[in-house]
Amino acid sequence: MREPLKVVIDTNIFINPDAYRYFGATSEQAFNNFLDMLERTKSLACFIPPSVYEELSKFFEGGLPSKKTVLIDKKPPSSYQNSIPALLFYEFIEEMRLRINKGLRIAEKYARKGLKREESEEALIKSLREEHRVGMREGIIDSKEDFDLILLAKELNGHLATADNGLIKWAQKLGIPALSAQELKELLERVV
Amino acid sequence: MREPLKVVIDTNIFINPDAYRYFGATSEQAFNNFLDMLERTKSLACFIPPSVYEELSKFFEGGLPSKKTVLIDKKPPSSYQNSIPALLFYEFIEEMRLRINKGLRIAEKYARKGLKREESEEALIKSLREEHRVGMREGIIDSKEDFDLILLAKELNGHLATADNGLIKWAQKLGIPALSAQELKELLERVV
Repeated sequence: MREPLKVVIDTNIFINPDAYRYFGATSEQAFNNFLDMLERTKSLACFIPPSVYEELSKFFEGGLPSKKTVLIDKKPPSSYQNSIPALLFYEFIEEMRLRINKGLRIAEKYARKGLKREESEEALIKSLREEHRVGMREGIIDSKEDFDLILLAKELNGHLATADNGLIKWAQKLGIPALSAQELKELLERVV
Repeated sequence: MREPLKVVIDTNIFINPDAYRYFGATSEQAFNNFLDMLERTKSLACFIPPSVYEELSKFFEGGLPSKKTVLIDKKPPSSYQNSIPALLFYEFIEEMRLRINKGLRIAEKYARKGLKREESEEALIKSLREEHRVGMREGIIDSKEDFDLILLAKELNGHLATADNGLIKWAQKLGIPALSAQELKELLERVV
């Protein structure tokens, strides 16, 4: 018998509508269907870092809507033992440097917009926040949870199931294969 | 005979007035005096990453003011082989997350300042840039050159001579001892 394929799972698989629709009409349904499929298969082992599991629990009001969550292995990455290639750190520093410059350009733009007084303070701050979020956050590892996912997938020699293109980009630099929600579903169906 | 102490040297030792004053009245004099002292000692080996050496060369108009620069070993860190602890990356991500939030707060402040129209555009943008630089850049590794210094010191099991507190903070996380310009001078004098 083949070893089960190890898959580390990101919350967005159940939160992002473009992702969860492969499993169900709502986040809740999708999560339950996913666990049902996982229960039937012997060829896929599913993991989640505790930090990401907590994120997922918070998303569902009243806690996770299933008694089968034990099917997902809550494994933290071994952060005290793991190391990453120095080259990845170089790339990350360069990426941050570019983003910081971009942040300054956005700030300058909105200071000038302010001077023109064409918008209310509320509207100005709202659009600033939106532009800042998109410009600074998208496509980058910007949380402990993101890095936990990558580190755990690396450690397990597993695949990473996520709908986050930024995360996929960084995972690929470490040789981690990514799975979309659709691919994840196909895998689960093949092995049912 | 003891092995010579390996010291990786940052440009700011010769560029920052608070640092170079231990070696001379000007950057140029300081650099020359430093090399003269280095020539006389057998107990200290000096290294610089090529990227940082280039930075230093650019600082001196007309090139480096000495024919003794061969005394400094221009060694790049082995970026393709080196790795860094995953924990350091976590700390860096957290630091960047805090900085990005700080950047947004600064941007909001200046958008609101703009709305008040108390300053000229020129004055507003100037103070925004200054506040952004201090808030976003200080105390962080924000360039390839900074990381080259840390990585080389780590690889050589050496000391890092720098006047940059941000760099010292990150070097210490990797167990790299830092030397101030004053300490560097004292070391060179002891072994002359």
